[in-house]
Amino acid sequence: MGVEIKENERIDDLQRNGYQIIQDPEKFCFGMDAVLLSGFVKVRPGARVLDMGTGTGIIPILVEAKTQAAQISAIEIQEESADMARRSVRLNGLENKIDIVTGDLREADKFFDAASFDVVTCNPPYMIGQHGLANPDVPKAIARHEIMCTLEDVVRNAAKLLKPGGSFCMVHRPFRLAEIITVMTKYKLEPKRMKLVYPFIDQEPNMVLIEGCRGGKPRMTVEKPLIVFREPNVYSDEMYDVYGY
Amino acid sequence: MGVEIKENERIDDLQRNGYQIIQDPEKFCFGMDAVLLSGFVKVRPGARVLDMGTGTGIIPILVEAKTQAAQISAIEIQEESADMARRSVRLNGLENKIDIVTGDLREADKFFDAASFDVVTCNPPYMIGQHGLANPDVPKAIARHEIMCTLEDVVRNAAKLLKPGGSFCMVHRPFRLAEIITVMTKYKLEPKRMKLVYPFIDQEPNMVLIEGCRGGKPRMTVEKPLIVFREPNVYSDEMYDVYGY
Repeated sequence: MGVEIKENERIDDLQRNGYQIIQDPEKFCFGMDAVLLSGFVKVRPGARVLDMGTGTGIIPILVEAKTQAAQISAIEIQEESADMARRSVRLNGLENKIDIVTGDLREADKFFDAASFDVVTCNPPYMIGQHGLANPDVPKAIARHEIMCTLEDVVRNAAKLLKPGGSFCMVHRPFRLAEIITVMTKYKLEPKRMKLVYPFIDQEPNMVLIEGCRGGKPRMTVEKPLIVFREPNVYSDEMYDVYGY
Repeated sequence: MGVEIKENERIDDLQRNGYQIIQDPEKFCFGMDAVLLSGFVKVRPGARVLDMGTGTGIIPILVEAKTQAAQISAIEIQEESADMARRSVRLNGLENKIDIVTGDLREADKFFDAASFDVVTCNPPYMIGQHGLANPDVPKAIARHEIMCTLEDVVRNAAKLLKPGGSFCMVHRPFRLAEIITVMTKYKLEPKRMKLVYPFIDQEPNMVLIEGCRGGKPRMTVEKPLIVFREPNVYSDEMYDVYGY
């Protein structure tokens, strides 16, 4: 295949189409949130998809595996992560389907035409600002804290790049739900579908999956709950479906 | 007791403190939503509480039973319902704790001082407008459709009557969640706590309970799910707690 694997990097199996991903466990590895987002997003055959802040490219690769998207683009500000994503794309032979751009999602319209995507996905940093961060200049911090972009940056730019009627899909933390809905509404990405992810049936949710429609009318569906564990260390059936094994 | 019971009316046991309520099954009987709201609301001892659009007074009576509120006021636009509520209050000997005003919640500040309540509750009509209604001039229609007041009327007036830091608690339908959060935020009733009610673990939620804090900062807690039925016709333990038997 001729794809370089650097020191400290490893290749993980994605359990989908035989796809793999290159990750550096000392920097950042994808989490359940990315996998759940790839299971939540609805992509019509032939659609154009953009993933904003793609990191090492987990979402484009899973979306390619699970849907019949025509083309998947992704933008990532950290060159090191973007480079890993590009190598994973080559490792899976997906160069014709997925293109990874190194760039700032706040300037995404420099790289892509306005109103040109059917779907925009994002697994953004969840934590507000850099509060409590000693050294914000590391991939994990940028992935977790709003250092390089805020929630509003993500939503504003998604709205710009989506076609009218196109959909925005994001995974986030429930504690920010009021802001998420308010900001999506402000930028005319009307919330249409939401799913809460509860680790156990008797615990608070720790993730929210939400879909907005550009220019949609108010009325949303809250889906059945996703309960992660049926019992300690045993995934629920829905989790096995999402993970694909 | 000397409380008049009219033709077609009946007295139902509330399974709390021996309290009862007068209802007319041909007009409107309280539902699970009112009971769940009375279990969701947090009321400090000595608090002043207002229930907006109280109907036959189920929420004030249950809140009186479950909390140590100092005083509970309620406003209801339909004199017939307000009269039933007043008779239920007398039936339970609660005249000193609960006062029922006949009036329009859109003019609630004619009856009550601004910023004078610690808690405002509401179980408002869920359906938008009068669409599909042949005869909107009946108690059931007014309770279910936004004929006499809109969601925004409820929230605006609740915000006016609450003390700074006071809390607004409402039960509503999940399909309107985006509007609910947007309108609450608009009137500075920051959403702080939310609970979704799922009939079964594998079904969409059919109710949302939400609390906003007047002047609060963004950051909300989504609580563990309330699953109504453990299996067909068998309530979950949490439901037995809420209903009190």
